[in-house]
Amino acid sequence: MHKAGSDEGQGRQDGLMDRRRALGVAAGLLGAAVLGSETTDALAQQPSPTPVAPQDASTTPGLPSGPLGTRSPFETPTLSPVNVTTGSANAPLQALSGTITPSDLHFQRHHNGIAVIDPTRYALTIHGLVERPMVFSLEDLKRFPSVTRACFIECSGNGRSAYRTPKPTMTPQDIDGLTSHSEWAGVPVATLLREVGVKPAATWMLAEGGDASRLSRSIPMAKMLDDALIAYAQNGEPVRMPNGYPARLVLPGYEGNMNIKWIRRLKAIDQPNMSRDETSKYTDPLPNGTARQFSFVMDAKSIITSPSYPMQLSSHGWWPVTGLAWSGRGKITRVDISTDGGMTWAAAELLAPVVAIAHTRFRLMWHWDGAPARLMSRATDQTGYVQPTLDEFRRVRGAGTDYHFNYIKTWRVDPDGHVFFER
Amino acid sequence: MHKAGSDEGQGRQDGLMDRRRALGVAAGLLGAAVLGSETTDALAQQPSPTPVAPQDASTTPGLPSGPLGTRSPFETPTLSPVNVTTGSANAPLQALSGTITPSDLHFQRHHNGIAVIDPTRYALTIHGLVERPMVFSLEDLKRFPSVTRACFIECSGNGRSAYRTPKPTMTPQDIDGLTSHSEWAGVPVATLLREVGVKPAATWMLAEGGDASRLSRSIPMAKMLDDALIAYAQNGEPVRMPNGYPARLVLPGYEGNMNIKWIRRLKAIDQPNMSRDETSKYTDPLPNGTARQFSFVMDAKSIITSPSYPMQLSSHGWWPVTGLAWSGRGKITRVDISTDGGMTWAAAELLAPVVAIAHTRFRLMWHWDGAPARLMSRATDQTGYVQPTLDEFRRVRGAGTDYHFNYIKTWRVDPDGHVFFER
Repeated sequence: MHKAGSDEGQGRQDGLMDRRRALGVAAGLLGAAVLGSETTDALAQQPSPTPVAPQDASTTPGLPSGPLGTRSPFETPTLSPVNVTTGSANAPLQALSGTITPSDLHFQRHHNGIAVIDPTRYALTIHGLVERPMVFSLEDLKRFPSVTRACFIECSGNGRSAYRTPKPTMTPQDIDGLTSHSEWAGVPVATLLREVGVKPAATWMLAEGGDASRLSRSIPMAKMLDDALIAYAQNGEPVRMPNGYPARLVLPGYEGNMNIKWIRRLKAIDQPNMSRDETSKYTDPLPNGTARQFSFVMDAKSIITSPSYPMQLSSHGWWPVTGLAWSGRGKITRVDISTDGGMTWAAAELLAPVVAIAHTRFRLMWHWDGAPARLMSRATDQTGYVQPTLDEFRRVRGAGTDYHFNYIKTWRVDPDGHVFFER
Repeated sequence: MHKAGSDEGQGRQDGLMDRRRALGVAAGLLGAAVLGSETTDALAQQPSPTPVAPQDASTTPGLPSGPLGTRSPFETPTLSPVNVTTGSANAPLQALSGTITPSDLHFQRHHNGIAVIDPTRYALTIHGLVERPMVFSLEDLKRFPSVTRACFIECSGNGRSAYRTPKPTMTPQDIDGLTSHSEWAGVPVATLLREVGVKPAATWMLAEGGDASRLSRSIPMAKMLDDALIAYAQNGEPVRMPNGYPARLVLPGYEGNMNIKWIRRLKAIDQPNMSRDETSKYTDPLPNGTARQFSFVMDAKSIITSPSYPMQLSSHGWWPVTGLAWSGRGKITRVDISTDGGMTWAAAELLAPVVAIAHTRFRLMWHWDGAPARLMSRATDQTGYVQPTLDEFRRVRGAGTDYHFNYIKTWRVDPDGHVFFER
């Protein structure tokens, strides 16, 4: 039962809880079952093979510990089925809480499969316009002073199919699952560049991967000297194999493909290399026939991960509207929520930790009265940039644009509580 | 080769790099191989089955993506072999970077095995001295406003065998592996207590687990109203099964066993319950025949995780001395390192993020000249409390104490570079 629903949601026309009110009032917020009465299922369950649990776990000795702590058999999150053409697999955003993406659920995007590299034979070469070209082993890298840095990495093509061919049955994973957040650890590129001695003429660096695609991109030297990292650890453990084991480049805020995995070479150069990967791809065509090139930084963006398809709201009353916001330009300073398709907005709470260039969780309590609703989230970052509407985005970029799909998305809530992706 | 070793380590007698110097100087810090010359193995490798990697991964198409991102076959961290008597398994601290403990490597300590609980049948009962006794389903819990909180959880018995029976071949995992750090997410207990309406007489709460040990502890109401959490998520995903799936109590800074896993009941009471688990265990005997009882808060502590057994330093020169520090009373404000067995000390750098009641990574560069050394770390927290020496600890607690082993530990470095646990 949800006893407090009818008299609690009247503060605002759109049903959203005022944030000051949320802090002060909680009694009767939602109806949990009063002792002795029946509970109701709050969320529609997705089909899955039925695991077995004892009727009462407190009367049956439990399982012994194993070498690793397993997931419950009742929880089986996976990356989305792999797209064979692009080698991509999306993270299940709707199954996540907080900010971290578990390392085995970090999205994947490969250009020629997952490289298998023996760490004892790994080598990173730094050469070109430097005083002392050098080769670093993995052990060499680990002997430098390390730093830790939480940030998101997002594929620049994230959101393409939702833009081109939206379907009501798309999940957050389908729509925007090519973004993930980790705590990375490694050595600053700036430290390595002081070792080799960069020459004044070197204004760019070519970064090349050691996988079979030999993906390479040109990166401004200023970025390399600022916050670029050769990361050998992710969420506390060695970088997972699909994320570039044993070492990858991390460029906080830059589009995913530039964060070169299995990094094997950095070459100091005096102009962009115009490599295959930066001329054949990663350029945004514009309606006037020109194109945006070197659109490195990921713009502010957000997505509501709950409620979302395939959820069904089981009852009227209070529901948390929650999701993730992020910006390649710094901290998220504000996320607004609309439940009426963008007519009115209310500020969500940003949950700690709020870290620059990192997934930031937002949440606002919404009182659903059973009327049809259209849920939207709109992120603002510390530069003042505001996530654009779909119409604004389409006007600037056109229907054929390939990358950086950061417009505001909409979930439709039907009177029966079913939630569908609208656009 | 390590070209810069001989002329870089002379600033201090103990070989430790001055922190200001570390920030300003990096060229020649350690000798990576100059292009074309030979590299040397920097760390002794531990034996493991030999995985296969192609000679050059850039000329062979890689592996396809799978449903989960796997670890490299060259990295096989596991929890320590389970102690059948205590149901405990230690986290491999020496294999970790940054602050997070990967969820499957979070330490385990069970009193009657790992409970398997069907989330659709999970229920949390809150009763006793409350206005409205209630039962919350997992879905009910997820409809409340959630919070995210990074913190460590440490077993109060962590370090017991290193105190009682130290062996030179103990690893950080063996010594202190019953501590782990996660980003927890869930609903504040305070929110649930506002739902049920706590009566003024209720000064304590009995918390009981739903596993076969039905572990129960009494917790001050003030703590429950402050920062206690019913956590259903850990590091972004549902709490792992050995960590209390589908929901556990998290009491930041309190000894591990009070963070009741598989939490099924909270009863508001007016005095401690004196349950089996808080009278038969978790009391610290003192040399004078009395005992410390209800020693809830974990004191400040630290351990160097590298260099540590079974490492062998492969060459003279600069090495990072790194490890973890934590305190149940707030932020770590300082960690000092000694390389001469405690005669002289130097402040290490605290790596971001530095979060209250959380694992905090420290690091200081040390120039090893080949002489025998004794490495120690000493943590200070925001209350001014300083981690005690072994002698101070033994004097106060005696040889037979059972819990809260937070004294300063020592690693011995031999002239051949081998590292052993001293005490």
